[in-house]
Amino acid sequence: MVQAALEYARSHRDAFLEDYKVLLSIPSISTLPENEGDVRRTAEWLAEALRRLGMTRVEVMPSAVHPIVYAEHRAEGRKPILLVYGHYDVQPVDPLNEWLSDPFRPEVRGENLYARGASDMKGSMMALLKAIESLKATGGIPLNLKFLLEGEEEIGSPSLPVFIEEHRELLRADAVLNCDGSIYGPAAPSITYGLRGLAYFEVEVRGPRHDLHSGVFGGSVHNPAQVLCELIAGMHDADGRITLPGFYDHVRPLSDEERAVLAQVPHSDETWKEMAGVKALWGEKGLSTIERTGARPTLEVNGIISGFTGAGAKTVLPAKALAKISMRLVADQDPAAVHGQLRAYMQAHAPDTVTWEVRELAHGHGALIKRDSVPMRAALKALEETFGVKPFFKREGGSVPVVSMMQQSLGLDSIMLGFALPDDGIHGPNEKQHLPTFFKGIEGYIRFLVILAEAPRARW
Amino acid sequence: MVQAALEYARSHRDAFLEDYKVLLSIPSISTLPENEGDVRRTAEWLAEALRRLGMTRVEVMPSAVHPIVYAEHRAEGRKPILLVYGHYDVQPVDPLNEWLSDPFRPEVRGENLYARGASDMKGSMMALLKAIESLKATGGIPLNLKFLLEGEEEIGSPSLPVFIEEHRELLRADAVLNCDGSIYGPAAPSITYGLRGLAYFEVEVRGPRHDLHSGVFGGSVHNPAQVLCELIAGMHDADGRITLPGFYDHVRPLSDEERAVLAQVPHSDETWKEMAGVKALWGEKGLSTIERTGARPTLEVNGIISGFTGAGAKTVLPAKALAKISMRLVADQDPAAVHGQLRAYMQAHAPDTVTWEVRELAHGHGALIKRDSVPMRAALKALEETFGVKPFFKREGGSVPVVSMMQQSLGLDSIMLGFALPDDGIHGPNEKQHLPTFFKGIEGYIRFLVILAEAPRARW
Repeated sequence: MVQAALEYARSHRDAFLEDYKVLLSIPSISTLPENEGDVRRTAEWLAEALRRLGMTRVEVMPSAVHPIVYAEHRAEGRKPILLVYGHYDVQPVDPLNEWLSDPFRPEVRGENLYARGASDMKGSMMALLKAIESLKATGGIPLNLKFLLEGEEEIGSPSLPVFIEEHRELLRADAVLNCDGSIYGPAAPSITYGLRGLAYFEVEVRGPRHDLHSGVFGGSVHNPAQVLCELIAGMHDADGRITLPGFYDHVRPLSDEERAVLAQVPHSDETWKEMAGVKALWGEKGLSTIERTGARPTLEVNGIISGFTGAGAKTVLPAKALAKISMRLVADQDPAAVHGQLRAYMQAHAPDTVTWEVRELAHGHGALIKRDSVPMRAALKALEETFGVKPFFKREGGSVPVVSMMQQSLGLDSIMLGFALPDDGIHGPNEKQHLPTFFKGIEGYIRFLVILAEAPRARW
Repeated sequence: MVQAALEYARSHRDAFLEDYKVLLSIPSISTLPENEGDVRRTAEWLAEALRRLGMTRVEVMPSAVHPIVYAEHRAEGRKPILLVYGHYDVQPVDPLNEWLSDPFRPEVRGENLYARGASDMKGSMMALLKAIESLKATGGIPLNLKFLLEGEEEIGSPSLPVFIEEHRELLRADAVLNCDGSIYGPAAPSITYGLRGLAYFEVEVRGPRHDLHSGVFGGSVHNPAQVLCELIAGMHDADGRITLPGFYDHVRPLSDEERAVLAQVPHSDETWKEMAGVKALWGEKGLSTIERTGARPTLEVNGIISGFTGAGAKTVLPAKALAKISMRLVADQDPAAVHGQLRAYMQAHAPDTVTWEVRELAHGHGALIKRDSVPMRAALKALEETFGVKPFFKREGGSVPVVSMMQQSLGLDSIMLGFALPDDGIHGPNEKQHLPTFFKGIEGYIRFLVILAEAPRARW
């Protein structure tokens, strides 16, 4: 059955690509209120696509912000249940002027398809749908499926924890396939077994009641932009370590075995540097790039704004300054504890010339996935057959909070099988999906579903 | 003649106020390209007003950005020539949402008139025009006048140095009246004899080629917003002193005599704090607020922007970060030297993980004015007669670069006689002019012109 499905997939690439483009053309930006209708439209579009695949009980279920799409497929016989997770929302597109083509008019240039969401993650979601279509057209879908597609991932999945808790019975499964993953390179398949958590904050420093004339008041009033810069500057020490009190207390150390696994990643600092487009790499001293980005927590200024930022010169002493600051967390770090550590830092270091506020915008736990389970071995085998080389394990710097939610609420590890590439430019301008990898993704999913369906259930 | 003119002024207050409002309703924002026509319209409006006052040779003269209004009045007999300086351009109005009324629809609330430019400096300019109108209507203008009104003050007067140099003969005068000044309080007249210079820069730090995903690259790429914050944080030491190399080398120290003069300013830190709306004052250790804001240089972050600053959470590692940073300079500091010091600081402290650029946006020298000249004594007497109390001397934190240009090109000290108040909110939202002070300003100018016209020229 695999061969027929693979052939179907290969002969339908043009049609698959067209469908993919239609999905990409809906601007499902979850963080912007003006796109609320587009997000819903995307959910409806996916529900319709799942109905066409013969899914039963397809529902667009309301949640706090954007709807969740749920669907089921019942296979014949005693087959495992695979719960599929995906998200159909995307990041905002600014800076828009840096895009070479309209982010919501998908454009193929060379081997890539450019559009917001092409890689994160409408690409992998579409690849899975097309894998299922190929199986359905050539003999049937070989196992039970449950779909959980959310529209709030890019805003921190605010509704998901409650939804999962309230639908534990509905979501009961034997394994989770999370499509929000990537492989290391077009010829270097990999599986992510570690994800970082996230704690995202807005830090606001307020000084004078209004913006002041910097000549009249300069020298007598503490500038809140300067204060915020000083506070941010203090958050890293000279070794690139984060100074929030207690920040490293619960960071799980890397074992020698794991360092050895990670050392197998065919990483090149030179290539990584070129991908990022920087003069030199940077980070916590004494650790490899792979360790720093995957297995160690970080703190980033995601944005900062204060005072006059238009063209020209305005001699203002700003009333306030605001930064978006987020931490990537590793296993055993608790986002709520990090929130407390940030407040403790501000308490200790903010001068009494200003007032400040810390607001949490999003949070999620990190996760580590078992590397020797039946579903994990199925994924490894599917990748090896598709790419012709052995895949390796990696940890990922990004956050997929749903993975730890599934662990905690459903007791299920997620298999992170997705077909993004590290240089896809996700969250930035000119996001793209490598099309040869997209088509391999369809084949990889076909093989994974078949291998998993055939695995002896007793050994799970 | 003074008495008749004063009576004329008192009986025409309503009409004066209406004219003042008309001038304020033209949005002459010099830094915004979209207001270029408005700036020109303001120049034409003033030229027409000067023609109505009987000025000869009224010209709207082109310059690099916005026109200069020039006008002359020839008095009978051997009278001194007073060169009047003013600027008719205003600052931008953002943050617009903090204004309680439209910045260009002047509104009287209580004793104040609210509008952009009400205080800086259409108010004092209008007060002088109305003083001249009062004198003309009641016996004639008693001395020679030359007007130089520019439209580029708020963008650093880029055309003025060349204009003054090229028109030294045209601008020949015995004294300069600069209306861009303020008094200490509604019942506390004062004359500014010291002004700070300005050096205004844009500092840009560039890291990765594009915005990156903070999860994928966080821990391996130096965040340019963090780098810029660290650089800014290093620009002040723990005592509030500026750390740019050589920054204080040419700062003229305060003499004991001058500290005594400044100690007479009826300043209250408590009131100043309330005016600024801050919890506590701040600044260079070991100096009074008056000394810090008037006689010492400062460095302010006027604005900073990087990454995602919209609503919600976006997990981006920004490609670049930009700050507007300006220094207020005191006498003997050279803005060009400060530019070099900022570059030297960046050279020494910017890490080699990023690239940076420093762009100068504006500059001007500070100035000190003799306190015992004939025109200065005329101004002191006019203020004392108008307010009924002895005025005192003060130094001002703001920059009026034209004062040092006039010193250097024409060899003339400027008498800073203007009727703004420190709490007028200039450059910020809800800028206002205190109307009782505006009307006193008209009377103060009437007296100044008459006293100056009558001063024995031999003693100048």
